[in-house]
Amino acid sequence: MDTSISVLAELRGAIGADSVMAGDAMEAKHFADWVVKAAEGAGPIAVAYPRSTADVSAILRVCHAHRIPVVPQGGLTGLVGGATPVAGCIALSLSRMRAVEEVDAAAATITVQAGVPLQVVQEAADAAGLLFPLDIGSRGSCVIGGNVSTNAGGNRVLRYGMTRELVLGIEVVLADGTVMTSLNKMLKNNAGYDLKHLFIGSEGTLGVVTRLVLRLFPKPESVCTAFCALPDYAAVLELLRRARGKLGGALSAFEVIWPEFYKLATTEHGVRPPVGAAAGVYVLMDSLGSDQEQDTAIFSALIEAALEDGVVDDAVIAQSYRESREFWSLRDSVAEFQRTFDPHVGFDVSVPIGRMQEFIDDCRAHLVARYAPVRALWFGHIADSNLHICVKQEPDGPTKKEIDQIVYGRVRAFGGSVSAEHGIGLLKKPYLEYSRSPVELDVMRRVKAALDPEGILNPGKVF
Amino acid sequence: MDTSISVLAELRGAIGADSVMAGDAMEAKHFADWVVKAAEGAGPIAVAYPRSTADVSAILRVCHAHRIPVVPQGGLTGLVGGATPVAGCIALSLSRMRAVEEVDAAAATITVQAGVPLQVVQEAADAAGLLFPLDIGSRGSCVIGGNVSTNAGGNRVLRYGMTRELVLGIEVVLADGTVMTSLNKMLKNNAGYDLKHLFIGSEGTLGVVTRLVLRLFPKPESVCTAFCALPDYAAVLELLRRARGKLGGALSAFEVIWPEFYKLATTEHGVRPPVGAAAGVYVLMDSLGSDQEQDTAIFSALIEAALEDGVVDDAVIAQSYRESREFWSLRDSVAEFQRTFDPHVGFDVSVPIGRMQEFIDDCRAHLVARYAPVRALWFGHIADSNLHICVKQEPDGPTKKEIDQIVYGRVRAFGGSVSAEHGIGLLKKPYLEYSRSPVELDVMRRVKAALDPEGILNPGKVF
Repeated sequence: MDTSISVLAELRGAIGADSVMAGDAMEAKHFADWVVKAAEGAGPIAVAYPRSTADVSAILRVCHAHRIPVVPQGGLTGLVGGATPVAGCIALSLSRMRAVEEVDAAAATITVQAGVPLQVVQEAADAAGLLFPLDIGSRGSCVIGGNVSTNAGGNRVLRYGMTRELVLGIEVVLADGTVMTSLNKMLKNNAGYDLKHLFIGSEGTLGVVTRLVLRLFPKPESVCTAFCALPDYAAVLELLRRARGKLGGALSAFEVIWPEFYKLATTEHGVRPPVGAAAGVYVLMDSLGSDQEQDTAIFSALIEAALEDGVVDDAVIAQSYRESREFWSLRDSVAEFQRTFDPHVGFDVSVPIGRMQEFIDDCRAHLVARYAPVRALWFGHIADSNLHICVKQEPDGPTKKEIDQIVYGRVRAFGGSVSAEHGIGLLKKPYLEYSRSPVELDVMRRVKAALDPEGILNPGKVF
Repeated sequence: MDTSISVLAELRGAIGADSVMAGDAMEAKHFADWVVKAAEGAGPIAVAYPRSTADVSAILRVCHAHRIPVVPQGGLTGLVGGATPVAGCIALSLSRMRAVEEVDAAAATITVQAGVPLQVVQEAADAAGLLFPLDIGSRGSCVIGGNVSTNAGGNRVLRYGMTRELVLGIEVVLADGTVMTSLNKMLKNNAGYDLKHLFIGSEGTLGVVTRLVLRLFPKPESVCTAFCALPDYAAVLELLRRARGKLGGALSAFEVIWPEFYKLATTEHGVRPPVGAAAGVYVLMDSLGSDQEQDTAIFSALIEAALEDGVVDDAVIAQSYRESREFWSLRDSVAEFQRTFDPHVGFDVSVPIGRMQEFIDDCRAHLVARYAPVRALWFGHIADSNLHICVKQEPDGPTKKEIDQIVYGRVRAFGGSVSAEHGIGLLKKPYLEYSRSPVELDVMRRVKAALDPEGILNPGKVF
């Protein structure tokens, strides 16, 4: 207790008494992230609210000297428990670092503090006539530092890449409080190791991200959307091949929906079926371009040729933005599935694109072998190799852990990844070794030890 | 001498006598790379030619045990001395690791050994109906492992990214011979740290790249090329903004050429001037698409609007592939400049796009202040922030070192990078600190020490 009192005093001395909350003054939200609560009595000893990089540095200097764990917290919207506090830690909230520092239209960059909500970054870019393309459902509450620390994905990865690809420059504070400012604005920079990649996607275990330079893009001026019914997965691969060829960089989403999902959405959730008869598999695809008339012509020709050649059995092309949104509402109805499909175990995995159907068949067979009446939904950003799965939990069926072991076991067998876009955090730690070899894990640990030898940064996360 | 005899014997025992050359059996080429020769008497003690990852591992185990430096060598086409041997090293040539292991059309990937020449990768992709977009002048002799180790750039970075963006999976052998196989085929994989980025662009100082999984793309089916004369750099920025907006992902090259370069190419090198009168600055731009007719319409409309609005003073659009090549021959004539502009000091730097002209004016003024009759050429992949500069050396003018110090000094002042795409190697080592802070360099050294504690991998390169 003495230590924590002296730590609190030091922290308050360093960044101001109004920036360090302890005891009953701590807001409950800092005791958990979206999915994992701190164990009873195992919360933070204080929540620190830095206003600047210098404040973050001061917090880490104090905590490093006392070997106090530090858990960085952004919007607390992660899905793997990556921001859940550990006992005796300082929760370092980026919520007061919300400055949009600069939009550089010529370089097409935006410079922001890490605590800026994703939606605010999007709006600042929009106000400058540009696009920040990262977009995920939690845009209003997640913050850009968290997006970078977890290498967030989302709906436009196909066209613009993961968050990693959108970061040009980074500033991080290392475990001992050292500030590494690397706010590069240039697309090409081969001056030594590209250190930003160490910190992107390492879930706050190597440093605390404080500022970022992000890439901006021209705003798309057209959108084309189609909903297609296809006979089978081979046809999906052929449609993807054609779409990549004809639409090139404009192809921005290629979502595949298997029948179980389609049926649930169009029956119990009342979404109007976009196409007529039942099909083997469905594809929802978007392209973003610069000229609605020309782009619609190219997009329609692609779909019509696929219909003529029997690649697609049935298809509708949105005639308006409203109709495009309606097609997407089928995909987005997953957010409502808790009403009809809970409890369920959800998965965010990657599998090589060519083996996706084989994986699904195999995984379904293994689930059925364990529990014959199993119900599961399959859907995902297939062009990115990313499959989402929801397995319904039944009172007489397998436990969450059993379901995890079956699904992650099949992911391992297919050379897939146990985390496509959500990260590892706490929840996926037991399965990290399913996708990473002992040598890879050893190299990760060597890097961790090199940058955080005392292990104070987000301890217990990732590995 | 005893040590080296025993090392040779061990190496021969490990990978076969025909795979280890010493003494007069060593080919001279392994004593130098494209620009830097080993010091007199300071060559390798042997050249090892592994045929497999296991061979590379065996070589490193032996060398690690004896603390013998290992210098990985690919096509030896680097421009900064990154593959020049150090005294007493083993040169590890990847030249026998030339297998194209797999093309996976569904995943759009190719798996290759590190010693495959870039052009062979391109041809294997092409034979499968796909494109491997990396392209640099040395394509016939450089090898893909070297491209990855140096994070090569080239002419299509704007559309497809640097080599880094084209790598999905990697296999490397660490300093102690440990093999890290991380041959991921998936676009999304957030299972722990993304270790491949450590090895991409670290110039063989952290591990020896042995195998790679690379991204492939649909072959473009159309190309549009324009050569434009513009009044000034502000107009260049406006044209770039419009091109990005209208062409989106199809914009694949945006080369800017300042008048000194244009004049030299069109006079002493006899290139036919594509446009009429002299201009403030010139732009050569390409777009790659899927439908020549539609793409030409969009491209022409963009250029015509720019002409009407005075953004562009004069422009020609290539009416054939031959004409497109002719426009490019002006840019490519730089390869012949040794005939008219040697000796010169060449630069590959990055500067934030918005400040490029200001940088050029400032840098020119500093060169003139030192030597009034100085001649310099300015050109580059400006949309990637990448500027190339050639400064003519005169008998009574500044030395190479003085010119380096002036130019890199101005790069530093503008927050630029002393290496856009060539890396650091030996030649740029003195200037690395112009673009990287002491903290960044310290983090690089910590990573190096974590992965190669004995410092045997390509010692003396980068830092």
